[in-house]
Amino acid sequence: MTAMPPDPRTTGSLGTGAAAAGAAAEGDARAAGDAGDPHLDRYAARTAGMTASEIRALFAVASRPEVVSLAGGMPNLAALPLESLSVEVAGLVAAEGQSALQYGSAQGVPVLREQIGDVMAFEAGSLGATGGFAPDDVVVTVGSQSALDMLTRLFVDPGDVVLAESPSYVGALGSFAAYQAEVRHVAMDDDGLIPAALDEALQRLAREGRRAKFLYTVPNFHNPVGVSLAADRRPEIVELCRRHGVLIVEDNPYGLLGFDGQTYPSLRSMDPENVVYLGSFSKIFASGLRVGWALAPHGIRDKLVLAAESATLCPPAFTQLVVSRYLATHDWRSLVKSFREMYRERCEAMLGALETHLPDGCRWTRPQGGFFVWATVPEGVDTRAMLPRAVTARVAYASGTGFHADGSGSRHMRLSFCYPPPERITEGVRRLAGVLDGELDLLRTFGVAGPRHGTPGGPQAPAVDTA
Amino acid sequence: MTAMPPDPRTTGSLGTGAAAAGAAAEGDARAAGDAGDPHLDRYAARTAGMTASEIRALFAVASRPEVVSLAGGMPNLAALPLESLSVEVAGLVAAEGQSALQYGSAQGVPVLREQIGDVMAFEAGSLGATGGFAPDDVVVTVGSQSALDMLTRLFVDPGDVVLAESPSYVGALGSFAAYQAEVRHVAMDDDGLIPAALDEALQRLAREGRRAKFLYTVPNFHNPVGVSLAADRRPEIVELCRRHGVLIVEDNPYGLLGFDGQTYPSLRSMDPENVVYLGSFSKIFASGLRVGWALAPHGIRDKLVLAAESATLCPPAFTQLVVSRYLATHDWRSLVKSFREMYRERCEAMLGALETHLPDGCRWTRPQGGFFVWATVPEGVDTRAMLPRAVTARVAYASGTGFHADGSGSRHMRLSFCYPPPERITEGVRRLAGVLDGELDLLRTFGVAGPRHGTPGGPQAPAVDTA
Repeated sequence: MTAMPPDPRTTGSLGTGAAAAGAAAEGDARAAGDAGDPHLDRYAARTAGMTASEIRALFAVASRPEVVSLAGGMPNLAALPLESLSVEVAGLVAAEGQSALQYGSAQGVPVLREQIGDVMAFEAGSLGATGGFAPDDVVVTVGSQSALDMLTRLFVDPGDVVLAESPSYVGALGSFAAYQAEVRHVAMDDDGLIPAALDEALQRLAREGRRAKFLYTVPNFHNPVGVSLAADRRPEIVELCRRHGVLIVEDNPYGLLGFDGQTYPSLRSMDPENVVYLGSFSKIFASGLRVGWALAPHGIRDKLVLAAESATLCPPAFTQLVVSRYLATHDWRSLVKSFREMYRERCEAMLGALETHLPDGCRWTRPQGGFFVWATVPEGVDTRAMLPRAVTARVAYASGTGFHADGSGSRHMRLSFCYPPPERITEGVRRLAGVLDGELDLLRTFGVAGPRHGTPGGPQAPAVDTA
Repeated sequence: MTAMPPDPRTTGSLGTGAAAAGAAAEGDARAAGDAGDPHLDRYAARTAGMTASEIRALFAVASRPEVVSLAGGMPNLAALPLESLSVEVAGLVAAEGQSALQYGSAQGVPVLREQIGDVMAFEAGSLGATGGFAPDDVVVTVGSQSALDMLTRLFVDPGDVVLAESPSYVGALGSFAAYQAEVRHVAMDDDGLIPAALDEALQRLAREGRRAKFLYTVPNFHNPVGVSLAADRRPEIVELCRRHGVLIVEDNPYGLLGFDGQTYPSLRSMDPENVVYLGSFSKIFASGLRVGWALAPHGIRDKLVLAAESATLCPPAFTQLVVSRYLATHDWRSLVKSFREMYRERCEAMLGALETHLPDGCRWTRPQGGFFVWATVPEGVDTRAMLPRAVTARVAYASGTGFHADGSGSRHMRLSFCYPPPERITEGVRRLAGVLDGELDLLRTFGVAGPRHGTPGGPQAPAVDTA
């Protein structure tokens, strides 16, 4: 267990650059893809959308301790109270082992579904003024990823449209691809999803005689962009979707991680019958337990339970009861607050280093919470093509191409400040700046679409580039 | 946690009897189905195959302590060494919490993939004479159910054919239905799948210009029938599938639970490139951890890892490391042996009670391992229609209809001897016999297709009815 595990939050679909990226990870036979697979003519059509992760090919290299990884989305667990937690988990096995180690309900353990109400209540606004929450509305899932996968299974026939922010969470795009959805990205700016852009997308679909199956959105401390949907846009987004008969899937893993404790009203609180809300313990407790939840209108909830029976029979009772014990016996609200402080400090380290080191012509977002900064590089630089060179320079990031269903986004990258300590973040950004300087030098030398020094941009320019 | 959890191993797809079965569980709003769901016109076509579990509607009643449940497939965990296990789990959290509680590899934790080799080696024959096992061939899954679901995802386009025994495991049928497979059942007898019947099914497909995507089979201590595939049939089945270009999915959760320690050579050992082998810790350790594995040819393994990223990002690292610690620190082979003894005793109690109490015209299988007896009732009795009356008489079973994709099998029922203690099993069978006597009385009184007393059948007749 010496090597760091690969971070699955960084996976992304590979387009034509697969071979090039794979070449950086010599000896990884899987990068060779399907060549020689005798079962190749047997796979279902949907497997065409299931392509190798962009990061995995580089992982063997990127996970070396000398590489600073700004690529992953792994929470930092250093603050977890492992000693007292170990006592509780031991008590769970000794006293409740017969039920904790047995098959459980496909909907999730009842006691945890009760407690999830407390967690949502702590995030002011997530329940909304009306409350509108009953434990029986909750389906516990094997992380939010499982909820995303099952919702896509329930709603998406091949070719159906799903709306998602531009850019969007790579794991969601992976599920959409696995069910052969047609993803249409909707532009964001520093205030999140742009209502006028959503309206335009919806109207265009209507003109085509089509309807999106749902809008997938991460309204709080967005992955990968780091911004939040402005409060005054929320009712507008909800109303647009309601009017066009489009369900909203509201994915909220970071909502409690606002650096100042700021929270936002959930979209669900504004239209509970047209929103499926996804929550997760991965960022506020422990990702390795894979415990998330969906809060859904009754009809969808019932179908989620059926999908869960097919997918896993039931989520592990044991991990759910570990979460339940933790919530019952620890001051989890204080731990959330200490996470906020830790991530704020790391974010500040990253923003400071970006300001100090990144060459002119780069710009980036200024998150108020969550895990990620979204950076845009000067025209002519391709972040996917640059990645192997960055890893050689001992820094890794997630290319923006993983966050677009069509593989665009090569002028962007996601920089995570969640996992490495501040001094490593600073060093990582310094190395990244060196790589970028080298790219820009090359561009200038060979005259290929290189940026002029001092082009507009920089941290004061609009940070989210939705082009 | 006073109520027993519902047992997901008993779920089955409901045909036309849904309303009737649901009526037995008054107050269960979900039995009403989709009525009033405003999202009804949005679901994907595949949801038509995702129907409510046959048992769930009855569960609220069947889980009452006064009901003897012969319906479930829950392992009995009474023999688990909870005290020493709790010490190990505490040590895991305290010493390895940072990795155990963190995201892990989508393929599974490496140390556990190594240890799975030991488990397979303990089941003589499962690795085969050639060994043919490398930890890198293993994909750890969220129980075998997740492996089944992902394999179906990888191979089945809507309308594709899957071959399965008649009857077949209900959870597999659920996954096949969720991906719109056409299931063709292949006849079994007391020696398992009949090669001639498989040959006929394969030839019929060939005449239709079609090919099955895979044969799904539970060769050892079959669920729900309880019989094992005879050793001399195994090479024949493997050769038939190889010749027709049909992959084999070999599901082996009970292989270590032969009452006399008898094991069988795995199908995989005879053709590793054309068999995906599924194993599970649910029956030999703890079902509530949801840890299973797939051993697959490289091309399929790689696609399973991609499917796992989409389905859950990664299986929980924590549960995998709990299994790993258990294997490393406990005499797990002795525990398996004590499980065998326990299940043998329960099986004997059930067989004795069936012999003593069941009316003439019934017959049943005589398992040498596993969890289940498959019983056939006289003509005219409908086990699904009878189930609410059985529950009223405080005994539950799984109707045979759940184990056939087309809802046939109403003359059969699965009787589980795994969970209740022997004296409860005896009492449950006594109650069941009373219900059957009542059904037969009614049939005789009203002359509706009632069986004549002393019809052929009984325990000496062929036990597996594949009609």
